[in-house]
Amino acid sequence: MSKKTKVNAAILIIGNEILSGRTQDTNTNTLANWLNSIGVKVNEVRVIPDIEETIVKTLNILRKENEYVFTTGGIGPTHDDITAVSVSKAFGLKYEMHKEAFKILEAYYKRGEFNEGRQRMVWMPENAELILNPTSGAPGFSVENVFCLPGVPSIMKSMLGGLKNKIIGGEPILSLTISLKTVESEIASPLAKVQEENKDVEIGSYPFFHAGKLGVSIVLRSENKSKIDHCNSQILNFVYKKKIEIVDR
Amino acid sequence: MSKKTKVNAAILIIGNEILSGRTQDTNTNTLANWLNSIGVKVNEVRVIPDIEETIVKTLNILRKENEYVFTTGGIGPTHDDITAVSVSKAFGLKYEMHKEAFKILEAYYKRGEFNEGRQRMVWMPENAELILNPTSGAPGFSVENVFCLPGVPSIMKSMLGGLKNKIIGGEPILSLTISLKTVESEIASPLAKVQEENKDVEIGSYPFFHAGKLGVSIVLRSENKSKIDHCNSQILNFVYKKKIEIVDR
Repeated sequence: MSKKTKVNAAILIIGNEILSGRTQDTNTNTLANWLNSIGVKVNEVRVIPDIEETIVKTLNILRKENEYVFTTGGIGPTHDDITAVSVSKAFGLKYEMHKEAFKILEAYYKRGEFNEGRQRMVWMPENAELILNPTSGAPGFSVENVFCLPGVPSIMKSMLGGLKNKIIGGEPILSLTISLKTVESEIASPLAKVQEENKDVEIGSYPFFHAGKLGVSIVLRSENKSKIDHCNSQILNFVYKKKIEIVDR
Repeated sequence: MSKKTKVNAAILIIGNEILSGRTQDTNTNTLANWLNSIGVKVNEVRVIPDIEETIVKTLNILRKENEYVFTTGGIGPTHDDITAVSVSKAFGLKYEMHKEAFKILEAYYKRGEFNEGRQRMVWMPENAELILNPTSGAPGFSVENVFCLPGVPSIMKSMLGGLKNKIIGGEPILSLTISLKTVESEIASPLAKVQEENKDVEIGSYPFFHAGKLGVSIVLRSENKSKIDHCNSQILNFVYKKKIEIVDR
């Protein structure tokens, strides 16, 4: 597998419960960390309601603009679980019973427990590839570059291992954090100069207030370690000159 | 102030740190809860990187499709804080020093501490309205229907109080939760029927695993209390028939 330099993805969180504030989304963070670790950069995240038209429209934008799209939510047995039918419509595919998924759930549940509601979970876009679920049986699925995962965070997370061979990442994105006992305004000007001279390193500046400490974390991100090191030494240079203390964070 | 029935908003989270997984976003949840409490429904959330072109383009879509747009992030003193210049470009406005903001920060900082970096924080779109910051001085701002807030959660939250008179919400969205000791597949079919008969109540079904308990929370949402009550009684009807236990959650 040859690695491309840049591989991009979008995350699509489907669920009224995030938009109403009832539920704090954590799937974005889990997916973002995992994707970055395998060399996939997250371009964009969207959170949208359980409305078929919105899901279809949004998916059709994101899947064309990104190499991968990961959705979470809406693949359970109830009426508000409409991801599979929406993905079918987005791709113009039949929405049908998936034989392999049927067999998996038939074996997973005790005799008589694979009821009508649960059978709804094996309806998918035709020829969808399954994403196995080691936690609770019901598989996710993928169509082309769109990967559909459940919304329950622990179940979603448990399914990522099974995706490793399906996602081809680019060079892993390396990052280095320098935490300083200072305020942003103190370093804004020299830091801007470092960014100016190192355009292909992403330099972020994040103030923190933590355990009574006030400071700034500077985060350097790039696929290229020597570029990060070069940036780092330029930053340490002005840090020493300004006698700013480096702290653990 | 007469209230409209439906008022919609979008949330735009600006920041590489969310997309890289370094930071767990909590501003969406804070804003969503607050907006829902004042009768504003969140249509959509997007998370995008600190790239001017992306911010301008996304803002110009969201501000036309929604009655309000709330951005968080990118309004500090460092080079990666580009929200104000991006909003100026999105609206075709001059990006200039805001006199009132200058006076606020000049008074906020000790003599000599209102340095170049900090002065960057008073550059805004021309005629922007300020959003006062009771925590750390530097104000946010609004232009037309776009409200720009900082990314640090505690500071962002402290500024919402000052927005109350600027946002005109619709009827507050009421919600009722019924938590059951059951699994989703057990109630999927009767619940779908209730949704079918009550199309203007949003009915969500959310499995939970909490403190050793496994169950499902059904959430009913509508501006109309009697519609929620009607739904609730239909749900309790099948819950009693099926002898499902109602639990605290």
